[in-house]
Amino acid sequence: MSSKLFTLEVQTRQRSQFIDITSEVERIVTQSGVKEGTARIFTLHTTAGLTINENADPTVVEDILMELNKVVPLNDGYRHMEGNSAAHIKSSLFGVSLAVFITGGRLALGTWQSLYFCEFNGPRQRKVLVKVIEE
Amino acid sequence: MSSKLFTLEVQTRQRSQFIDITSEVERIVTQSGVKEGTARIFTLHTTAGLTINENADPTVVEDILMELNKVVPLNDGYRHMEGNSAAHIKSSLFGVSLAVFITGGRLALGTWQSLYFCEFNGPRQRKVLVKVIEE
Amino acid sequence: MSSKLFTLEVQTRQRSQFIDITSEVERIVTQSGVKEGTARIFTLHTTAGLTINENADPTVVEDILMELNKVVPLNDGYRHMEGNSAAHIKSSLFGVSLAVFITGGRLALGTWQSLYFCEFNGPRQRKVLVKVIEE
Repeated sequence: MSSKLFTLEVQTRQRSQFIDITSEVERIVTQSGVKEGTARIFTLHTTAGLTINENADPTVVEDILMELNKVVPLNDGYRHMEGNSAAHIKSSLFGVSLAVFITGGRLALGTWQSLYFCEFNGPRQRKVLVKVIEE
Repeated sequence: MSSKLFTLEVQTRQRSQFIDITSEVERIVTQSGVKEGTARIFTLHTTAGLTINENADPTVVEDILMELNKVVPLNDGYRHMEGNSAAHIKSSLFGVSLAVFITGGRLALGTWQSLYFCEFNGPRQRKVLVKVIEE
Repeated sequence: MSSKLFTLEVQTRQRSQFIDITSEVERIVTQSGVKEGTARIFTLHTTAGLTINENADPTVVEDILMELNKVVPLNDGYRHMEGNSAAHIKSSLFGVSLAVFITGGRLALGTWQSLYFCEFNGPRQRKVLVKVIEE
């Protein structure tokens, strides 16, 4: 039993954007050599998040971003002076970590599931930690 | 130290429905023989989720489902043609995985806590993975 | 490889309040002697949660609490008679567990990240479990 820690850099291009990181995480799992275990993913930021959602139709991600902006408007009488309170709130609603099982050396995801880095206050250079745990 | 992976089938009966899966997960933990560790639960779908909430008064779950439909309406100008964007959004808000400690061979839950499978786009036959990790 | 389980008591003072528990969790990690691994945190309540967010400007936390009360109002035609349905809903939106990597004997958090206990139905005496896993 063992674990290895990797760092992934993610360059976002827009204020609000979901970036599919599934293939990068898959590559890390392959590189680790772990066949059975868990991949745990953590992002080091407070105005971004991580989520798992549909990868087939890109309008799903567009709808999520659109609706999130309705639920948590960019401007809504916030006191924090940096103007990014909505991004902090979305980060807490989505969370900054994920855990996905590894079976047969691959991520055990459903047919339609992809891993997304969720930028809520871009564009920025972001860091994601990926720990591959054999178990 | 070791881990075992189990699959749970969940049949949902309504469009939006929470199903208490605590006793099924407890049974898996007992079957695994693990006394100290963690049960990690993951569902393979993008229009469903998992959560921990109150098990005593069923109106709590009804209130959660009712309020979620106010916050993320079923129809709200979404672009995704399948008509289930609200379910995708709720899935990201709740998340598709849980981790619960095991102590003395049982789930270490609070008095009022149960594990719920959250159907947001049913009725459907759903799959939940449960990994029991000795640690 | 090993793990140790600790209990943290948190006294909340207001109905809605975020309490920074980072230093308490750091102290537990130090006490455990674990240098590389994961700290997994779980709260045993259904009207509270856990989150990671900014620790520098206290208005961020105030904005999160303010906006959450707009998204999920304290009174909104709920059926649950105890009057705390909003707290249950917020608990499911935020979740009751966190996982943070440990590197070099310390929590691997970003510059601005702190761990918060989220009281949604206080004031109360609350319990948080912290498991430190060597891996």
